[in-house]
Formats: sequence, structure tokens, C-alpha cells
Amino acid sequence: MSAFLDKLAAATARNHSLLCVGLDPDPTRVPAPLRDRADWVARFNAGIIEATADLVCAYKPNLAFYEALGAGGMAALRATLRAIPPEIPVLLDAKRGDIGSSAARYAAALFDELGADAATVCPYMGYDAVQPFLEYRERGVFVLVKTSNPGAADFQDLPVSVGGVTRPLFVQVAQTALGWNRHGNLGLVVGATQPGAFHVLRELAPDVPLLVPGVGAQRGELETAVREGRDRRGAGLLVAVSRAILYAANGAGWQAAARAAARTLRDTINTLREA
Amino acid sequence: MSAFLDKLAAATARNHSLLCVGLDPDPTRVPAPLRDRADWVARFNAGIIEATADLVCAYKPNLAFYEALGAGGMAALRATLRAIPPEIPVLLDAKRGDIGSSAARYAAALFDELGADAATVCPYMGYDAVQPFLEYRERGVFVLVKTSNPGAADFQDLPVSVGGVTRPLFVQVAQTALGWNRHGNLGLVVGATQPGAFHVLRELAPDVPLLVPGVGAQRGELETAVREGRDRRGAGLLVAVSRAILYAANGAGWQAAARAAARTLRDTINTLREA
Repeated sequence: MSAFLDKLAAATARNHSLLCVGLDPDPTRVPAPLRDRADWVARFNAGIIEATADLVCAYKPNLAFYEALGAGGMAALRATLRAIPPEIPVLLDAKRGDIGSSAARYAAALFDELGADAATVCPYMGYDAVQPFLEYRERGVFVLVKTSNPGAADFQDLPVSVGGVTRPLFVQVAQTALGWNRHGNLGLVVGATQPGAFHVLRELAPDVPLLVPGVGAQRGELETAVREGRDRRGAGLLVAVSRAILYAANGAGWQAAARAAARTLRDTINTLREA
Repeated sequence: MSAFLDKLAAATARNHSLLCVGLDPDPTRVPAPLRDRADWVARFNAGIIEATADLVCAYKPNLAFYEALGAGGMAALRATLRAIPPEIPVLLDAKRGDIGSSAARYAAALFDELGADAATVCPYMGYDAVQPFLEYRERGVFVLVKTSNPGAADFQDLPVSVGGVTRPLFVQVAQTALGWNRHGNLGLVVGATQPGAFHVLRELAPDVPLLVPGVGAQRGELETAVREGRDRRGAGLLVAVSRAILYAANGAGWQAAARAAARTLRDTINTLREA
């Protein structure tokens, strides 16, 4: 088992949690007390981490929100990574994918330079776009399969025929990606907005971890995601929630509100996984 | 026509060139005279730009190579962007794709923060992953369709059935993406290693620009790419070459060697496009 999976299992057990908090700082939703601070990104994230570090199994910063803020945004990301307790895994949501030589540089950026425990990658370019990530055996690699957004239907659901069998593209992607999992460090991304996907993916992949975004602001179905997405041990699931926790309140009580939202979500997930 | 297309057409005409030089600084291939310099990335790129600025229609930095070098790499990218003459368009090769709210932040990162004239995006997540980029009407948006790498065959070639018609996924992606092109700023990425793709894509899309990587180090077929990929005016094509120009020599003559390689490629492309 990869060091990432060990770390994830330990954090899941310690915090009794499958909740993965997305750290996606949005300049239009900064809590009022931080609004005029130049260092609001690092302060905001540190406040969210302080309020939730005993309630989560992982943190998931999405790089888009840092890159959009330029050099200062990337410096704030580094400060955020330092603020995360070392026993909690960090999954960098980057959705990278490129030809092998470039993919190797992206993997170096995420795993060596930023020190992520895991990352998300895009499968459209096939094996050599994903393989350089998988070669980091101690890190987790989550391949996009069935995403949480409306556009997921545009291509991921199209029926593809391979060897006389016709099934949706996302199922073909999942099965192919599972064949790349020589080091046991692969995971799949499945949106909570896609309740029909969990059963078929768990039939193919009973044991790999699933990263499940789309709960909260995207109104995914938490109950189906947990009941059908959990592995045989009732775990193997990272329920990723960003906006519903980060922006639970925007006044002086933003940290307490974030903590309350995280606690409610964690407990709801636990009730469902143990049912 | 978008400002990007105007700028591209002007650079193409001025330099009589369809050659797009990829600026992908590889720490293992630094020319000897720069090897011990902390600022080698900015120096190397400035040298390549100085040697080729009258021979290209665009420059294409791939973000992977800068992100892998951390904050210093991103600072070198900014220095590189300042070193590119303002009349030559900059295409940032980023292959981003995420849910709408995150895609909007990636578009802000590339177009507002870094000031790119155009960018590459990944279509796997569908319309809302690409639309925030297309809303920048004056910038170009190149959607990955048939990529140049071996893994392109894993999914892009799979037969998909839509409305009773069966065809490869990449053709379906191209046709769908063309339907998103309300502002006339869409382009497609087609590898030169995929000679069979040009004819079918030009039938679907006679006028959109094609970004064609894979010539040189990836051994794509330049002749087919130019003959079948050019639009009806003999243009609409950006032939992207990185390693074969950047690393044409690694001693004191590296700039002259890069210039010679770029000139030969530009002239070969022109001979083919005018044939």
C-alpha cells in the first residue's frame, strides 16, 4: 500500500472522517474580517484548517484558485501547505494531462516541488499522460472518470464499443485506468451528482479509493455516493466539499460556521457509511 | 475575427511562417554556457526568442516546464513573456479543464494574470470546462482533439455512437467543440503523428486554426500535416516544434543552431504549403 493510502487511512481513523475539505479561495467570497488584508488567502486557509483539522481525512486545494492570483496566490498556496498538519494528506486538485515528457514535469511540480501526497489527473491523452504520476509509488493518483459538472454528459456518457462490448466512455476509462495500477496507488474521481455511476464503478473497482466532489454547492446526492461508493470496509471514499464549508458564513463567525458545517457533513457521512 | 486571430495572421504574414516554437526549458538539456547560471531559464528563452523572432508565427510555452521549477520557474515564465516581441502571439500550453467555476479561475490565470493570447484546454469534462475560456472573445482557445502522443489511441480513437452515427471519439469531440464556437475564437489540437486525422477534421472544420505538435522529437509527418491541415487560404495552421529547435545544439553555438533549425523548418513548411 502506498504511503498516501497509509496516511489517508490513518487520518480517516483518527478523525473518524471521510470528509475532504477543498481549499478553494474565492476573492468574491472572502469573509468580511479578512477582506482588506493582502494576505487574505493564507489567513483564510489557515483559519479553515484550524477550524477543521480534527474533522477531515484530507485537504484538497484546487490549483486554479491560486494560479488565478498570480505569484502571490502561489506563495499563499505554499503557506497553506505548511499550515496543514503533517499527518493529514494533501491532495492537489490539478487535473493535469500532457504528453509523457511534459506529464513528468507536471508530476515533478505537484509531488516534488509542492510535496503533494496525491493529485488529480485527466485521462483524455491516455497512458503516457498518467504514467509519470503513477511512477511516484508513494503518492496517490486520482484519474477523472465521471465528473460532477453538467458537461460530464457531453463525452463521458457516450457509448463506446471495444471488443464487441458497448458501454459509456467513463466506464471504459475506469477499466483502462485500473489496468495501469501496477503500484496500487490509483484512485478514481466520480461526482456525487452521478449516482448511477457508483454501482458500476464499484463492481469494476471494489477497492480503489474514490474521490467524490459535487456534494454541497453542486447538490450531489450524498446518500447514494456513500452507500454505493464505500468500499468493502466502509471506507475508500473521500467526500470532497469546498464551498458549503468555506463560505458557510462570511461575517465574524466564519470559522465557527465552517467548523459546524464540516462537523455536520462528517457526521452525516458517518451515519450513512455505518448504516 | 478575434484579436488573437488578427495577431496570428499578422505575424504569419510578416514572418512568412506557420512555425510555432515551443518554449519548454528542460534542466537536463541546458546549453553548456548557461548550465551554472541560476537564471538559465529566462536567459535560455531570451536567447531562443532573439534567435527566432523573425521566423515564427507564435511562441508556445508549456506550463509544465515552469511549474516544475517552482516559484523561480514561474518568475522565469513572466520574464520570458516580457521578452517576446508584442506583435508575436503567445499561446500558453496548459491543457486545463475543470468544472465551470474552477475553469473560470484557470482562464483568469492564463488570460488575465499571465496575459496569454491563446491557450490549450482539455475537453474531457465537456462544455462548462471550456466555455469560460471561450468567453474571452479576443483570445484563442485550442481544444485537444487528437493528440500527438502514443496514449492518444487509448481513448481518442474509440468508436462512439451518437444518433446512429459511429465515429472515433476525437471526431465527436471536434464536432461538439465546433458547436461551442460562438465567438469565432476556437481552434483544435491535432498531432502531426496522426496523419489520418487531418482530412476528416478539415472536412468538419475548414476554417478553424489547427495547432499541430509532434513534429521533430515526436517524429510526426510534417508533409501530410501541412498539405491536409492547411485551410483554404493555405494558412490556419500552427506547426509547433520544441525540442528539435531548442536543443539543436548544446554548446556555444546553441543560438545559431536553434536559428538554423527554425529557419529550415519554416522554409520546409512554406514549400509544402505552397505546393
